[in-house]
Amino acid sequence: MADEIILLDFWPSPFGMRVRVALAEKGLKYEYREEDPRNKNPLLLEMNPVHKKIPVLIHNGKPICESMIIVQYIDEVWNKKSPLLPSDPYQRAQARFWADYIDKKLYELGRRIWSTKGEEQETAKNEFIEYLKILEGELGEKPYFGGEKFGFVDVALVTFSTLFYAYESFGNFSIEVECPKLIAWTKRCMEKESVSSSLKDPQKVHGFVMEMRKKLGIE
Amino acid sequence: MADEIILLDFWPSPFGMRVRVALAEKGLKYEYREEDPRNKNPLLLEMNPVHKKIPVLIHNGKPICESMIIVQYIDEVWNKKSPLLPSDPYQRAQARFWADYIDKKLYELGRRIWSTKGEEQETAKNEFIEYLKILEGELGEKPYFGGEKFGFVDVALVTFSTLFYAYESFGNFSIEVECPKLIAWTKRCMEKESVSSSLKDPQKVHGFVMEMRKKLGIE
Repeated sequence: MADEIILLDFWPSPFGMRVRVALAEKGLKYEYREEDPRNKNPLLLEMNPVHKKIPVLIHNGKPICESMIIVQYIDEVWNKKSPLLPSDPYQRAQARFWADYIDKKLYELGRRIWSTKGEEQETAKNEFIEYLKILEGELGEKPYFGGEKFGFVDVALVTFSTLFYAYESFGNFSIEVECPKLIAWTKRCMEKESVSSSLKDPQKVHGFVMEMRKKLGIE
Repeated sequence: MADEIILLDFWPSPFGMRVRVALAEKGLKYEYREEDPRNKNPLLLEMNPVHKKIPVLIHNGKPICESMIIVQYIDEVWNKKSPLLPSDPYQRAQARFWADYIDKKLYELGRRIWSTKGEEQETAKNEFIEYLKILEGELGEKPYFGGEKFGFVDVALVTFSTLFYAYESFGNFSIEVECPKLIAWTKRCMEKESVSSSLKDPQKVHGFVMEMRKKLGIE
């Protein structure tokens, strides 16, 4: 029996994009189902009753939730093609550490840049830059976070680059000036078909963030 | 060469206790080094420069940080004895999901019970109970979270039982009344030498929390 793979997702979500990149890396075909976060489908509530959030991967009827847990699942089930986690336990722990670091802070810090103003925004921006510089330092001169090959941490981080234009535009700063290596790495990742075909246009994501700001009554 | 294993820890930490349980499950000997969170050692800052927090496992000179990442590392390196994560990818994803659920909320919700008063405390307590009931539902009639054997999710959760007495005493409620299966499971886990020898006395942890409250000026 062929695998039935369904992805419940929402187009501007950097979390959903992580799953799309992982599926593309493995060359897997799947059914994409767009969810409306303001009007959740019964299937989403049934498949993720705890968090009620996308992305959810439904593999042969069984749900897997939380983006990096899904990416690990995909990597373990389809382990022959394009391994994302390294095989060495220490390197695996390091990859999990950095993915966890990204998960704990990036989204929230970024959200504060576009959803606040004045001093609050300035603080958020400075924290965000400090935070990105730690990632820039970890990348160093390596082509990818894990070394020579695109892998787990790259999947965790690269999808947030779709939000960089919104962060820069609403925060009035340049990520490239602050973290040139990180931007070079982003461009390197985008040369991969699995990444470029899975990531949404930063201009469109910017438009979505603009709508969110309007709904929140900013500007 | 024998493995050199050092654990940087702080005795009342439920995160540190997770690592102690995992090491005990594998029958590993290690050097325990008590850290003072208010006066951090240079070694801790060197080994965990990003978060500057215990627990840190130093294995043959190399640091691993973040408790559940350490537990996974231990499980992968010493994989022959007492496997903590199941071998099936779907079951692994489920175990990671619940450990992540525990990580995202338990500590913070519990902290709010003992560090607030009045209505704020009441809200925290209700959220905490609601949250524990989801875990109680997931446990169901199984002896352990993963089924017949003590495993990953049990390690993630059981060390918080050392704080239950403090939560109950400062929040004035009974976890056993709300979640009897969870308390029965706690007792079942405590029958294991690896757990009972690694967990600190809830009375002592209660005393520690009392000191923290005094420092915060509560009561």
